[in-house]
Amino acid sequence: MQLMKASWIEVEKYLQTSKAIVIPIGSVEQHGPNGLLGTDALCPEIIAHRAAEQADILVGPTFNVGCAQHHLGFAGTITLRPSTMIAAIQDWTTSLRRHGFERIYWLNGHGGNIPTINAAFSEVYAELSFANTPPVPGLQLKLQNWWQLAGVSELCNEIYPVGHGMHATASEVAVTYAGCPDAQKQVEMMPKIAPLGEISHAYAYRQSFPDGRIGSDPSQACVEDGQRIIEFAAKALIEEFSSFSAR
Amino acid sequence: MQLMKASWIEVEKYLQTSKAIVIPIGSVEQHGPNGLLGTDALCPEIIAHRAAEQADILVGPTFNVGCAQHHLGFAGTITLRPSTMIAAIQDWTTSLRRHGFERIYWLNGHGGNIPTINAAFSEVYAELSFANTPPVPGLQLKLQNWWQLAGVSELCNEIYPVGHGMHATASEVAVTYAGCPDAQKQVEMMPKIAPLGEISHAYAYRQSFPDGRIGSDPSQACVEDGQRIIEFAAKALIEEFSSFSAR
Amino acid sequence: MQLMKASWIEVEKYLQTSKAIVIPIGSVEQHGPNGLLGTDALCPEIIAHRAAEQADILVGPTFNVGCAQHHLGFAGTITLRPSTMIAAIQDWTTSLRRHGFERIYWLNGHGGNIPTINAAFSEVYAELSFANTPPVPGLQLKLQNWWQLAGVSELCNEIYPVGHGMHATASEVAVTYAGCPDAQKQVEMMPKIAPLGEISHAYAYRQSFPDGRIGSDPSQACVEDGQRIIEFAAKALIEEFSSFSAR
Amino acid sequence: MQLMKASWIEVEKYLQTSKAIVIPIGSVEQHGPNGLLGTDALCPEIIAHRAAEQADILVGPTFNVGCAQHHLGFAGTITLRPSTMIAAIQDWTTSLRRHGFERIYWLNGHGGNIPTINAAFSEVYAELSFANTPPVPGLQLKLQNWWQLAGVSELCNEIYPVGHGMHATASEVAVTYAGCPDAQKQVEMMPKIAPLGEISHAYAYRQSFPDGRIGSDPSQACVEDGQRIIEFAAKALIEEFSSFSAR
Amino acid sequence: MQLMKASWIEVEKYLQTSKAIVIPIGSVEQHGPNGLLGTDALCPEIIAHRAAEQADILVGPTFNVGCAQHHLGFAGTITLRPSTMIAAIQDWTTSLRRHGFERIYWLNGHGGNIPTINAAFSEVYAELSFANTPPVPGLQLKLQNWWQLAGVSELCNEIYPVGHGMHATASEVAVTYAGCPDAQKQVEMMPKIAPLGEISHAYAYRQSFPDGRIGSDPSQACVEDGQRIIEFAAKALIEEFSSFSAR
Amino acid sequence: MQLMKASWIEVEKYLQTSKAIVIPIGSVEQHGPNGLLGTDALCPEIIAHRAAEQADILVGPTFNVGCAQHHLGFAGTITLRPSTMIAAIQDWTTSLRRHGFERIYWLNGHGGNIPTINAAFSEVYAELSFANTPPVPGLQLKLQNWWQLAGVSELCNEIYPVGHGMHATASEVAVTYAGCPDAQKQVEMMPKIAPLGEISHAYAYRQSFPDGRIGSDPSQACVEDGQRIIEFAAKALIEEFSSFSAR
Ligand code: NI
Ligand code: NI
Ligand code: NI
Ligand code: NI
Ligand code: NI
Ligand code: NI
Repeated sequence: MQLMKASWIEVEKYLQTSKAIVIPIGSVEQHGPNGLLGTDALCPEIIAHRAAEQADILVGPTFNVGCAQHHLGFAGTITLRPSTMIAAIQDWTTSLRRHGFERIYWLNGHGGNIPTINAAFSEVYAELSFANTPPVPGLQLKLQNWWQLAGVSELCNEIYPVGHGMHATASEVAVTYAGCPDAQKQVEMMPKIAPLGEISHAYAYRQSFPDGRIGSDPSQACVEDGQRIIEFAAKALIEEFSSFSAR
Repeated sequence: MQLMKASWIEVEKYLQTSKAIVIPIGSVEQHGPNGLLGTDALCPEIIAHRAAEQADILVGPTFNVGCAQHHLGFAGTITLRPSTMIAAIQDWTTSLRRHGFERIYWLNGHGGNIPTINAAFSEVYAELSFANTPPVPGLQLKLQNWWQLAGVSELCNEIYPVGHGMHATASEVAVTYAGCPDAQKQVEMMPKIAPLGEISHAYAYRQSFPDGRIGSDPSQACVEDGQRIIEFAAKALIEEFSSFSAR
Repeated sequence: MQLMKASWIEVEKYLQTSKAIVIPIGSVEQHGPNGLLGTDALCPEIIAHRAAEQADILVGPTFNVGCAQHHLGFAGTITLRPSTMIAAIQDWTTSLRRHGFERIYWLNGHGGNIPTINAAFSEVYAELSFANTPPVPGLQLKLQNWWQLAGVSELCNEIYPVGHGMHATASEVAVTYAGCPDAQKQVEMMPKIAPLGEISHAYAYRQSFPDGRIGSDPSQACVEDGQRIIEFAAKALIEEFSSFSAR
Repeated sequence: MQLMKASWIEVEKYLQTSKAIVIPIGSVEQHGPNGLLGTDALCPEIIAHRAAEQADILVGPTFNVGCAQHHLGFAGTITLRPSTMIAAIQDWTTSLRRHGFERIYWLNGHGGNIPTINAAFSEVYAELSFANTPPVPGLQLKLQNWWQLAGVSELCNEIYPVGHGMHATASEVAVTYAGCPDAQKQVEMMPKIAPLGEISHAYAYRQSFPDGRIGSDPSQACVEDGQRIIEFAAKALIEEFSSFSAR
Repeated sequence: MQLMKASWIEVEKYLQTSKAIVIPIGSVEQHGPNGLLGTDALCPEIIAHRAAEQADILVGPTFNVGCAQHHLGFAGTITLRPSTMIAAIQDWTTSLRRHGFERIYWLNGHGGNIPTINAAFSEVYAELSFANTPPVPGLQLKLQNWWQLAGVSELCNEIYPVGHGMHATASEVAVTYAGCPDAQKQVEMMPKIAPLGEISHAYAYRQSFPDGRIGSDPSQACVEDGQRIIEFAAKALIEEFSSFSAR
Repeated sequence: MQLMKASWIEVEKYLQTSKAIVIPIGSVEQHGPNGLLGTDALCPEIIAHRAAEQADILVGPTFNVGCAQHHLGFAGTITLRPSTMIAAIQDWTTSLRRHGFERIYWLNGHGGNIPTINAAFSEVYAELSFANTPPVPGLQLKLQNWWQLAGVSELCNEIYPVGHGMHATASEVAVTYAGCPDAQKQVEMMPKIAPLGEISHAYAYRQSFPDGRIGSDPSQACVEDGQRIIEFAAKALIEEFSSFSAR
């Protein structure tokens, strides 16, 4: 069930059998010459929505803008400061707890979000830990990157043995092409495989990575690959979320 | 063009002819027994995306969670604190300015967001106003509620002369039904038309409005009405945005 | 009773019969060539103090500096950032609740404060709404602009059928002249009636409105008009506050 | 000249000969059985306004609510958190610098404000100190307590050799009585002279100081004493401000 | 006992007999040509650790970086903004209260910290004072500067009758030389005794005090003097802390 | 060179040949029955100071209190909220940049700090990335955990093939024993090797890990092991820092 398309009565009913929810969380940032700016939000959203078609999983709204300061040298990128993102994750979590949710599973699509999401978890937990009595009920927050769901990165490397890369990867572009076939873009990559390097601020990033990609050749991406990855990842998510819910 | 499905190169090209962008902004909150939790985010998103199909308008990602503290008594509602929302709108705006956007048009779907969006505008402007030299280039921020686009509220009242209401309105539910036909819900309203009253915190709200609606009978909503409103509103948006861009 | 001139014992006694208080809230900003920088703080203060002479109303200190970033192009203007103002309104409210006040009536003198005051209300309410149990006792926050008290704007338009205006209005200048007759200033207005336009940051404001006024001819203002408006508004305030207190 | 009663044009003219301004800063807090809640804001305001009648001094609006958390056990007290007060002082200072003010003289009426005002000065200066180039023009912030103006505390001790005290002092009550004769209150003090002790949070404060006073017998206060102190302090302020302006 | 070298079990045991702790708090800032950047953190740390060797006192970690914006013109200085320092002191205090500490004694080494530490105390107390019920258990926060421990400043003035000074004082340099003999530096002072003056931002500071010192001749400092001061101050601390603990 | 024991003149001289600095960063938190509360701050400090004895490396003050909310169930633990830690790291970094430092190497001793340090880096970089012109000079921030210096974890596993563990590890306790031999504690571990598990808030942590350890038997720790690790790690640090400085 997608929370955005559910009524409050339907969510209230869901809470009678489960206290767990999935929140897709991503970023709006350049993804090279043929990748979508929304890639990192779309990937976890597509996978989570696919999972929700096949199992009784509640998927919340997508937290779409994340930590992307290093991509600001490329048009269309939008970022939160980490301190803003922490405040927002706190508010989302406090809201969900108010309804009785005890387990929040953040399915992440952007490596650059990982530190700040974990810092936000600590900020939320700190409030509980400072208190003089244990939280009733408890709270469990989990971060999982979609590409680290069981077996997914193996599958991606199998599909793209060469040029899978680190940013604007072939696999993430494929997932978005499968989710939004009308958004496919044919662009020749030059060089074929993008350079590797280190990430700091946006000016340094653009110098190191002139077209935005890191180590990838996303021109390999196609709808069929994307569908295969989505199906695989959705199944892995169902399994992992089910054990998280039951913990 | 939808920014989320565009590449940075496409956005860079768009900026050569326009410095203006539309950002749909909404809320995730209960919308009565048959309305979607995502209604207020979906309505401006649906209308903006429809407009972008017919005109050269860039639509950014949807700012989906807003100010909904008063709805927290109903499962599924998620809110930001206003201070968090201000910080996030600042970050979105600063990011967009970095790329050269000078006119940001926030198409809003939630009455409860209006004060905080305007406060955020002042926060952003204050930084420019404190500076010792005029901002180069300038910046214009505009808030428009989709139901206040030229002629739209007249149309809604014409379609629903009775029971249009103030929250979980017949028209907004219709728009989401047109946008997401599979999310339609058949629920009998009791009473037929919901009560009116004042809004403060969530506990008082739930007492005043037991099923979440204010003054409305959204069981009248249907896909056809929604389509009519969407088409009308999208055209009004194109016109208004075009004159905003040119100003 | 004016809180600033009362002892704590007198306020404690007042609380035995009423849990309601009026807080005048304004701004320090240019008001054209003959208007006072303190106009927006003085108007609600003068009206509230006049009401307190005639009825058992407690009037708190004046929240004098508000949201005036757009006026910073004119000497003497002082502004808070909206985020600062929200924090301050929270602190005032929390302090008053600590003593048992349950209804706080903010009598506002500045249009530019409206969004931020309402955002502050949401910030305060959000804390109550996030909590797992209803607030005991409850809290009601009300914002009223003095010019929207019952019948006041009609009276102002009757007195100034031409050139009442939008900023540095004839009526607000008259109210301050009645309250501070020694502060009257004779200035010829050029043009007689100031232009209309849109508001954004301070640099754009000064270009659009070279002497600060918007749409007004405040040279019409005089002590007698001001007295008439004050008397009328004070009576309206007494009535409205009385029903607010009893709600 | 009082900024609140001046026009922007008058302030602009003032700035041609002086870059200095006085800001009265106080608190709204209990002042014992016969003292006014507004005492600490009224005292510097009365003295500064008196000085401005006799010399070319610009007096800004009164920063009326300060740091009074320890007095919250007594009805009517209002406090800012120090972090809020720092933000507000920053905003006032930034606004004034925008107009060209370079020397801001905070005339303080409340001992409990001293740390936070000085912390706010450091917060403001830190921004200048972090910058890679010296501030142009410079900025000087000065805090002076009215009772520490040259000769004032000697005068107060001379007038009240016994029971002047530490909080709700005879002298500050006298100053407010002289400024607001209609607010005088006849209350017998029991004990005649209040106890001494240490200050922490509001619950401890009320236990140590049951009627709010510390070490004082303010029933000695009268209008004549107050007038004498005001005249003396206003002259001292004129002198000190004049040398601050010229520095 | 030093908390940093204790186990949690040892601290738990300590709490059975005392709820009080000493926190050395200092600054990292220039201390003239022969003084250490860490002087203000080292002095209270050295004295507290010496006291803990002779009495059953728990000494927490040193809060080493404080408010030093005015020294930023000299290499190596590190400062917190006061707002950051307040947040940090809140967190330290909340953490210690969680374990049962009720009395926290901050032994300070830097005059520039005094306002912000006291503001932080108010911030912490405000939370308790806003609450509807008294804090259980209570909380007492105390700030003491090491040079104001009973008899210490007299001793310092006796040892250095000339050129003790205000910053980079002979005594503080002596204390650090005694604590870190290998860090002694032989530098000829020019002029012998540094000038006096006022402190604002870093650019003004460096102009007024070209080598960083204020009013001092720290070339007098030696290990023996430092040892004498340390022994004396440690004894005074033991006495004062013991009465603070018992209060 | 240790910055804390250097004069500003010595740091100024250092800056003529290097723009890089090491900052040890740790935590104050329980480390099981025989580990020191200061372990995570002491380890990087000891290693960095040892390195500075052998090479021309400037070591700044130790950032001693970090993110330890999960350990608050054990006496003596002190934590910052992540938002506070981000603000503090910003201030340290801004201060160091002011002097000309361009490369800051944070040598970390606590796994729980990693997300927040990286989030702080993004917060700092975001300011540079939002700006309209590239930062001059540039800035590079690097996080390294001492146990991930080249070869160190291999050495630790070689020394402690069984019961090295995840928290309160044998190796970190050994390093502190070598650095502070007088702080060694003889405690029998029960069970010999602590359990493994997941980390969330402090109440859950204490339930899962009753004496604080995770997966370790730190009773194996001894001074000799610690010395070996320190020597090895210091050499690795020298090498890595040297290449970071030169980059
Ligand atoms: Ni990506
Ligand atoms: Ni709605
Ligand atoms: Ni006005
Ligand atoms: Ni007072
Ligand atoms: Ni010092
Ligand atoms: Ni550790």
